[in-house]
Amino acid sequence: MTTVKTSEENVIMMGGGKASPDVFPGAELTAAATYIFQEKIAEALQYGPRPGYDPLRQRLVDEWNRQDGLDLKAEDTRIVTGAKQGLDMVVRALCSPGGCVIVCEPTYGTGMEIFRANGAQLIGVPNDEYGVDPDGIERALRAVSPRPKFIFCMNDLNNPTGSICSEERREKLVGIAERYGVPIVQDMTYRWLQFEGRPARPLQQFDRRGNVITVGTFSKILGPGMRVGWVHARKDILDRMAPFKSDGGTSPINQMLVYELFKNDGSLELFLEVRRRTYRRKRDVMLEALAEEFKGTGAQWNKPKGGYYVWLYLPGVDTDGLVDGTHALKGTGQAGGPQVIVIPGSHFYAGEPQRGFIRLAYSFEAEQRIRTGIRAVASALLPALRRASK
Amino acid sequence: MTTVKTSEENVIMMGGGKASPDVFPGAELTAAATYIFQEKIAEALQYGPRPGYDPLRQRLVDEWNRQDGLDLKAEDTRIVTGAKQGLDMVVRALCSPGGCVIVCEPTYGTGMEIFRANGAQLIGVPNDEYGVDPDGIERALRAVSPRPKFIFCMNDLNNPTGSICSEERREKLVGIAERYGVPIVQDMTYRWLQFEGRPARPLQQFDRRGNVITVGTFSKILGPGMRVGWVHARKDILDRMAPFKSDGGTSPINQMLVYELFKNDGSLELFLEVRRRTYRRKRDVMLEALAEEFKGTGAQWNKPKGGYYVWLYLPGVDTDGLVDGTHALKGTGQAGGPQVIVIPGSHFYAGEPQRGFIRLAYSFEAEQRIRTGIRAVASALLPALRRASK
Repeated sequence: MTTVKTSEENVIMMGGGKASPDVFPGAELTAAATYIFQEKIAEALQYGPRPGYDPLRQRLVDEWNRQDGLDLKAEDTRIVTGAKQGLDMVVRALCSPGGCVIVCEPTYGTGMEIFRANGAQLIGVPNDEYGVDPDGIERALRAVSPRPKFIFCMNDLNNPTGSICSEERREKLVGIAERYGVPIVQDMTYRWLQFEGRPARPLQQFDRRGNVITVGTFSKILGPGMRVGWVHARKDILDRMAPFKSDGGTSPINQMLVYELFKNDGSLELFLEVRRRTYRRKRDVMLEALAEEFKGTGAQWNKPKGGYYVWLYLPGVDTDGLVDGTHALKGTGQAGGPQVIVIPGSHFYAGEPQRGFIRLAYSFEAEQRIRTGIRAVASALLPALRRASK
Repeated sequence: MTTVKTSEENVIMMGGGKASPDVFPGAELTAAATYIFQEKIAEALQYGPRPGYDPLRQRLVDEWNRQDGLDLKAEDTRIVTGAKQGLDMVVRALCSPGGCVIVCEPTYGTGMEIFRANGAQLIGVPNDEYGVDPDGIERALRAVSPRPKFIFCMNDLNNPTGSICSEERREKLVGIAERYGVPIVQDMTYRWLQFEGRPARPLQQFDRRGNVITVGTFSKILGPGMRVGWVHARKDILDRMAPFKSDGGTSPINQMLVYELFKNDGSLELFLEVRRRTYRRKRDVMLEALAEEFKGTGAQWNKPKGGYYVWLYLPGVDTDGLVDGTHALKGTGQAGGPQVIVIPGSHFYAGEPQRGFIRLAYSFEAEQRIRTGIRAVASALLPALRRASK
């Protein structure tokens, strides 16, 4: 077997969580940039306040309060350079010079890399389809000494499984965090991309002591290149994080671009509706293609209510062995067919992974390429699946 | 004495290193943003490569090689979210979980804050008007065990003193770093803003082993709001830094804006000429005003060949006591006069500061306000200076 270098067009990207270029708002951003660079350049090109651009902080809080009946305050919100920087600041503030962190797994792999790079030891507690497992988390809190520094979870459309945590479990989780005095770091990256059903009540509705830290981003709805995210937390936690906002404040240019897009009442909701429709259609295409290609093969997959990903399960298959170093699925990219990039499931576990999973992103590719991609995925995977079920 | 809240207009900013809004290139940025959001949005709004936008990395290296006869490579360059992030990554990579760092002081205060926030212990070795003191650095390297993790210096227009390190000392410094196997972190933030004489040969011209790490930024020439800087280093050092580029890559939008401004041959040089002229004029205005107000008082100050600052010396005066918590100079802002923001000299020392210094930035304010500001500074400081000289 020879490796053929494939052109970019012949590589179907179902790996990383790239946004759909179909809905990049070019005209709106051009107008916003023109306004900012012509009317507000003295503010845009100067150092901004480290906590963030005040109108954007206020806008975010107004939106959360309106959507979820909360009573959050702009002063407890910090703008960060993407959710990744938020997680980096949280782990440096809460977990230095080391310590344990509970991660509700499978979960966001890059988040775990950031925690580990800063000396955290990760303790995985399994999620299921109803979200985090409060009893498992409590057992881990009791078992580990010194006490873990925080609990990391994604209650809305967990990456990679798409699970949405039930409200009952949310309430229980907040109660446990309160009893043990351990903060919860809730990554809300996909909350605004739930396209079926109403979002569940956010953790903050159950939180009386400020034990909930939320981290979020405009990356998945607007575009990751924007690099604008946020952290909302209790003041003393924000103060501990502040020295680690080491880029000197997120670029005012990017913050003002985001603000200009969403400053008017209803503008964010309208924007989100279009994105939800787009990603829903892409999800449907991938689910249809999976049903066609994998029906009756023993493979299983979820039907996510939002977000970017399908979590494919191939019983008995060692999925780590199915990709090369660049996450290209072996067996794709041959004889003129497309190469497909995917992420093996082990990436989403803190410790010993559950075997047999692959994450497939439907977010980036156009519909026809999703179909083509899934056909190629099936051709590559079905032999392994047949071998495993023998 | 009552404190009167002053309006923004009545506050003269000679504190932080803010850029001159007179030379913010609004039209050029509008054109660049329009092009990027209309023609390149699929790249601008997506995740960029973590090492940086390739054309910008290449452009930077071409520029350095042309200006200084170097032979640097784009692959050894990383784009970072301002020089601050570069320093943050360097200290996390080289000085974890702690250790000593030699800083050639007085030097960049925020840089030292970043080092300290990450657990570094700072050892100050004094600069003088000819730059760093290689013998002092060698003594510190011999005296401290375990060996310091790196040497931090600003050889071109040191912040705050404006000193330019002699080439003889540069060569000696590189030799010492080589002998002791300790990297030099050279902050080149102001190098492009030298408006008198030719810049000295950069450290890299003496460096055969890759012991020199350079950190720089577009903040001072273009505007701090852009948040685009760079690190150039040996590959193994870059690899150690990589996990701490935790924002997931500097925004491609900002990188592409910078690239569009400077992509044509000669465009950067032309741009720099205008900025050098602007800051030179501001410097001259401040020096004239200082001469008028402080002549014969015993105060001394440097005549910087570039950069943003004058370093004012008031023999015998405790300058820490002259400012309030917001760095407003006490005695300014009264009876309708302007309040002046300055930075007391102690901010620029790792340990026990040399007494009697104040840093005055001429970079931000318009010429007339520089004059007004210096008059207010003189009214506030002369009584303290007279008391001290009794």
